Amino acid sequence: MFVTIEGPEGSGKSSVTKKVTEMLEKEGYCVVLTREPGGTPISEQIRNVILDKANTKMDGMTEALLYAAARRQHLVEKVWPLSNEGKIVISDRFLDSSLAYQGGARGLGIDNILSLNHFATDGYYPDLTLLFDIEPEIGLARIAANASREVNRLDLEKIEFHRSVRQTFLGLAKRFPDRFVVLDASKPFDEVVLNAYKTIKDRLSKCK
Amino acid sequence: MFVTIEGPEGSGKSSVTKKVTEMLEKEGYCVVLTREPGGTPISEQIRNVILDKANTKMDGMTEALLYAAARRQHLVEKVWPLSNEGKIVISDRFLDSSLAYQGGARGLGIDNILSLNHFATDGYYPDLTLLFDIEPEIGLARIAANASREVNRLDLEKIEFHRSVRQTFLGLAKRFPDRFVVLDASKPFDEVVLNAYKTIKDRLSKCK
Repeated sequence: MFVTIEGPEGSGKSSVTKKVTEMLEKEGYCVVLTREPGGTPISEQIRNVILDKANTKMDGMTEALLYAAARRQHLVEKVWPLSNEGKIVISDRFLDSSLAYQGGARGLGIDNILSLNHFATDGYYPDLTLLFDIEPEIGLARIAANASREVNRLDLEKIEFHRSVRQTFLGLAKRFPDRFVVLDASKPFDEVVLNAYKTIKDRLSKCK
Repeated sequence: MFVTIEGPEGSGKSSVTKKVTEMLEKEGYCVVLTREPGGTPISEQIRNVILDKANTKMDGMTEALLYAAARRQHLVEKVWPLSNEGKIVISDRFLDSSLAYQGGARGLGIDNILSLNHFATDGYYPDLTLLFDIEPEIGLARIAANASREVNRLDLEKIEFHRSVRQTFLGLAKRFPDRFVVLDASKPFDEVVLNAYKTIKDRLSKCK
């Protein structure tokens, strides 16, 4: 089973997912938590190029191609082998982030970025995608309040960019209703954890 | 005018092109020599990931996506602006290297890599492509004899890989006869320089 976690920065998705992973592991499930861009040494090197604050001249399509390259390596080296072993693989960000950020907010076109990503994924989709939905203002305020988290190149975009990201994510949830579940990420941490946990557990039962 | 230089490692293409660029500059032509992957700071960072000898686990499609990303940034930041200013831009490697190495030798399919690269190039092709053709055995022997040049990840491929690269390059020259000119790179340095120089000059006159 391949679960992806999507949503804007500051939605709490990474902290929630870490907690849910621990809960599932305690119950004896074999869960591997990974992230995009990254998850393998080569993908982490690509991540460094993408998120480097100095790379202000990066073209939107260059960015999309780099995300696709990191995605490909992550799938080949980690997601597919672990999934084939029967593990539950949970990835913090995947395809839909490219569709929302580059396809939607950067204006490159969702179908364009979907076609491009076909080269990276061979048409492989997650079984379940949890969308952590939150108003951009709340998400960005959370980032600003979190001293331990370094600000990256994408955080520095204008508020309109982040609004467009959110709207595209919500549009994707409507377009792919079979795999998307939208969670209200503005709720208290424990409540979001419980909702995310229940959603994954529910899907696991259905798979059995 | 956009000229690309293609061929295997050890074909002498970089040294010859440097010399030809100097000859054209002396005649008053505004020539900019650049290279792929690289040519801009972001593309050079991507180049480092691609050619790092430690990255032995790199998937062929990851490699193709990284080359396309470096190509995109190089076009947007350097080739297109300079070309719009009326400069002659000469690039040491471009699209056809991806077609020969990833499409042909790595077996990913030439049309597949051509489609992928459409995202990087928006369908932009060189006006002239010089193919430095040479037997792989001679090219590799030249690299081995050249102490100043560091061996990279692609040099370490087996001889069959390099043979396939050569055959794919020759096939591309037949497929795109309007822009390809094949040069015999096994000839003495000065002779290859003269042939390359004449070919570019001939095309420049036609443009006028």
